[in-house]
Amino acid sequence: MPTMTANSGPTDLLRCLQLAEAGRMYDLSSGWWRHMPNFDGYPRFEVVTYNSPAGERVEGRFPFDGSPNDVEFGYVSELISGSLHTGTHIDALSHVTGGTRDEWNGGTSASDAVGDHGPLRADAAELPPIIGRGVLLDIPGFLGLDVLPPGFAIGAEHLAGAADAAGVTVGAGDIVLVRTGQMRYWPDVDRIARECAGSGVDLDGARWLSARGVAHTGADTMSFEVRPSRVPGNPLPAHLHLLKECGIHILEWVNCEELASDSVSTFLFVALPLTIRGGTGSPIRPIAVV
Amino acid sequence: MPTMTANSGPTDLLRCLQLAEAGRMYDLSSGWWRHMPNFDGYPRFEVVTYNSPAGERVEGRFPFDGSPNDVEFGYVSELISGSLHTGTHIDALSHVTGGTRDEWNGGTSASDAVGDHGPLRADAAELPPIIGRGVLLDIPGFLGLDVLPPGFAIGAEHLAGAADAAGVTVGAGDIVLVRTGQMRYWPDVDRIARECAGSGVDLDGARWLSARGVAHTGADTMSFEVRPSRVPGNPLPAHLHLLKECGIHILEWVNCEELASDSVSTFLFVALPLTIRGGTGSPIRPIAVV
Amino acid sequence: MPTMTANSGPTDLLRCLQLAEAGRMYDLSSGWWRHMPNFDGYPRFEVVTYNSPAGERVEGRFPFDGSPNDVEFGYVSELISGSLHTGTHIDALSHVTGGTRDEWNGGTSASDAVGDHGPLRADAAELPPIIGRGVLLDIPGFLGLDVLPPGFAIGAEHLAGAADAAGVTVGAGDIVLVRTGQMRYWPDVDRIARECAGSGVDLDGARWLSARGVAHTGADTMSFEVRPSRVPGNPLPAHLHLLKECGIHILEWVNCEELASDSVSTFLFVALPLTIRGGTGSPIRPIAVV
Amino acid sequence: MPTMTANSGPTDLLRCLQLAEAGRMYDLSSGWWRHMPNFDGYPRFEVVTYNSPAGERVEGRFPFDGSPNDVEFGYVSELISGSLHTGTHIDALSHVTGGTRDEWNGGTSASDAVGDHGPLRADAAELPPIIGRGVLLDIPGFLGLDVLPPGFAIGAEHLAGAADAAGVTVGAGDIVLVRTGQMRYWPDVDRIARECAGSGVDLDGARWLSARGVAHTGADTMSFEVRPSRVPGNPLPAHLHLLKECGIHILEWVNCEELASDSVSTFLFVALPLTIRGGTGSPIRPIAVV
Repeated sequence: MPTMTANSGPTDLLRCLQLAEAGRMYDLSSGWWRHMPNFDGYPRFEVVTYNSPAGERVEGRFPFDGSPNDVEFGYVSELISGSLHTGTHIDALSHVTGGTRDEWNGGTSASDAVGDHGPLRADAAELPPIIGRGVLLDIPGFLGLDVLPPGFAIGAEHLAGAADAAGVTVGAGDIVLVRTGQMRYWPDVDRIARECAGSGVDLDGARWLSARGVAHTGADTMSFEVRPSRVPGNPLPAHLHLLKECGIHILEWVNCEELASDSVSTFLFVALPLTIRGGTGSPIRPIAVV
Repeated sequence: MPTMTANSGPTDLLRCLQLAEAGRMYDLSSGWWRHMPNFDGYPRFEVVTYNSPAGERVEGRFPFDGSPNDVEFGYVSELISGSLHTGTHIDALSHVTGGTRDEWNGGTSASDAVGDHGPLRADAAELPPIIGRGVLLDIPGFLGLDVLPPGFAIGAEHLAGAADAAGVTVGAGDIVLVRTGQMRYWPDVDRIARECAGSGVDLDGARWLSARGVAHTGADTMSFEVRPSRVPGNPLPAHLHLLKECGIHILEWVNCEELASDSVSTFLFVALPLTIRGGTGSPIRPIAVV
Repeated sequence: MPTMTANSGPTDLLRCLQLAEAGRMYDLSSGWWRHMPNFDGYPRFEVVTYNSPAGERVEGRFPFDGSPNDVEFGYVSELISGSLHTGTHIDALSHVTGGTRDEWNGGTSASDAVGDHGPLRADAAELPPIIGRGVLLDIPGFLGLDVLPPGFAIGAEHLAGAADAAGVTVGAGDIVLVRTGQMRYWPDVDRIARECAGSGVDLDGARWLSARGVAHTGADTMSFEVRPSRVPGNPLPAHLHLLKECGIHILEWVNCEELASDSVSTFLFVALPLTIRGGTGSPIRPIAVV
Repeated sequence: MPTMTANSGPTDLLRCLQLAEAGRMYDLSSGWWRHMPNFDGYPRFEVVTYNSPAGERVEGRFPFDGSPNDVEFGYVSELISGSLHTGTHIDALSHVTGGTRDEWNGGTSASDAVGDHGPLRADAAELPPIIGRGVLLDIPGFLGLDVLPPGFAIGAEHLAGAADAAGVTVGAGDIVLVRTGQMRYWPDVDRIARECAGSGVDLDGARWLSARGVAHTGADTMSFEVRPSRVPGNPLPAHLHLLKECGIHILEWVNCEELASDSVSTFLFVALPLTIRGGTGSPIRPIAVV
């Protein structure tokens, strides 16, 4: 199967690039803006003007080599703050832990590797550039729905059925995007909460994905997996299965609406995470090219 | 000329993807880390652990649907703050202004469009995905040097000479990366300050680039252009020419060392800026594929 | 009248200190905590652990003179962010502006004096230590109520009436605290919103206070003044009258519950604002001593 | 000796207030400003304009009850971030730990009580208002110096000698300020580093203070105690002795220059720490009144 990621060999990479046949590009990102919706447990995303021409004049500030500034050069910059899990993003492997030793993928214990300034290992600095075959599994499309109902659990049978219906065989190295339709209402998260929140992949679905050797997987939701969990005592089993057990990165808030509306099933997928040391993920602006 | 960007047509986009022939990828980014070197006028880049399994236990915090947590699920996240011009990045068109009305590209006055939370227009939200032909102009390589000397002004003749030596014709839609060699010492900015700071493109060089219709241009330095400026009364003439007059985005801190060491001159270039409203640029992790 | 502030002479200061006769102290502050209630237009108050013994061990960090650390010395610190108008606070004179030139007290125009990093003048750096006679005007107490009803406008007659009932003559240099009772429900701001929000001093009330030469005035609410405004076209007339026209600082979220419940009317009042350059106010922890 | 703190009884509090006899007040704080000097291990102190009249106009933002705004009301506010140990401040008891269990005062282990958002106990929320007898021990004055030399260790004999010379008996409940003279050069920390850094109280000095039952103690330096430590294997023994063993709060960067220059030895001392939950200290603006 011609799919590959940054870690694959040159032949695979070239084959992936050749997946683009029509020369049409899709932006799969959520956009980002001050105070945008996000998981409550993360800091609020903030954007503040940090430099402005008016401010530079008031402060008599002009830090450029002592040059005269007859042309009235000015510059604008910003201070931002927030979580790297804001908007469309990818989870690093250090993002989730399980067990009494708080271990993430590979057996690293958070108590050994999470400092005051993020994890020392398995952090965003280890996220590869992602170029590979993208596969969209449009679950509501497969079921004849616009959007999945609240709390709908996407199991192996739904993933397999959607793949079959699209004539796609999911395979090693694929980046599989699972559509619930929640982003049809984005960024109206109140409407999402009322009409369709919680739908997502369940543990069987996650196992179906890992069994096929996918490189990464994502969804158009905040949590990727079905909420509340169907596994008693395990609040986020798909996260633990994919990130911790299998080392498969999860992408969240990936906007699949245009792909679905154009009935695109396979495509060149590119995402370029920022390698921030101590980060537990990275915002990304994934693109699909067909 | 077979180069194109997101704004180009489908045929161009496909031709660009075909620039990759060997299936080898280069990561052109600087990396990012807490307190990493940056322009003094920007906020310091900060990374702090925001959620950790140990902290969750101490605080009795577990915000997941009221589920029991027999598997000891935990999560790690971070708070980051800083400027979007940290590490490898691209400048949005609202980043620089000139004239008594503080105008940026297109005549927008900062006093009309810069609010307390960034510019309302010409901001990072307008940055396109960038896929195109990348061209490396290795100036020290052309001159038989490892690194350009401090304050070396790269003029049209150097750019033209380096292109000729590489057998490349720079043309419309190209993304041109100009190498000074400063990143050979990255991130040792004290050494850069001592041995090679200030080298960069001068106004004539910038005009040479814009005359060829390049889509974007960048360098392996903090400021892209030569410092101090050679144009009396105009501290950053290349910025004003490219960003304000021509609408050509500037990329800074682009790591060209591996490309140069492999004598790569043309390549598929991909960068995917984050469309942050109110941002005046975006960190990027550009890749080259040959 | 024996009242004074830091600006008053030595005799006044001594007389103020002698207001304490019983040796009983009241803490008039709101407390502060992560994500505490605040005006929506301000940044959220954030507290994050920045140094911890566990983190120091993980990071191998110990920045103390290269000494061995046989005693396992560790330290804990924090990163905080937010507005200086969080919880109990005092407004600096640069906090509000009016007119087409955006002027604050004394005719300074914000366009001349507000830089990118706060106002250059009339900022928190100019806030004096406050030691003076405090006067509590308990309006619901005067009216036989527990708490004022929503949007209740406190006029001159209510202030005068409450002063008379308490046998107090408000005079020059006094720090007058006006109680609405809203903090009876603090920090349950949902209940405040439902049952009593918006009560506060109206423009006539503010004029009554300024006419008596008060040094500072405050209330147990977020906005000090009645909301919505009773003055058409002027959304916050008491702020403009007191801060801009009269140079009288306003204190907000001052907890008067204990004073009221003990029927205290006059007291030694002490508050020590932080002189933060560029700040437009300061959190304070005022105390009353009787 | 009639000294007391907030925890003392009414009689003591009144006696303290009577220490003021001349009606003269001293501001003992450092001031605060963006990027001010601080311990490298803490976040940089940042101040950014968050609301401004110009910004409000650009953004069409006016969140006041939907009222018309004929008077052009505007407001200015800020975003600040940093450590609570910036400038003049007081350490909470959770600030330092020792031993393999990382315990602070009273035996609390940081691993049990430091969450992701600060300590749950012994934090700034437990800091009392401080009103008491202040005592200045001017060590360079006692030794006939302007400023102590670099790394000068202030021992019990220096403290006792300075007290004797001033005719003061240090006693229970006192707030003792130890002057090294470093703040004579404040905020020129480069000069401090060159000429006088590191002077401070040694372990014997700290024991002398605790033996007298002082309520709090402070100095005009960043670290209070002598640096490097004179106790092998214990980098900050005075911190551990005072904060951890004795529960005596430490004040740092207290400006004693004016008191010393006026030969003031005893005074009414007032400081009002902000009770920030999760904080490990608080900036304070202490005053002395004589």
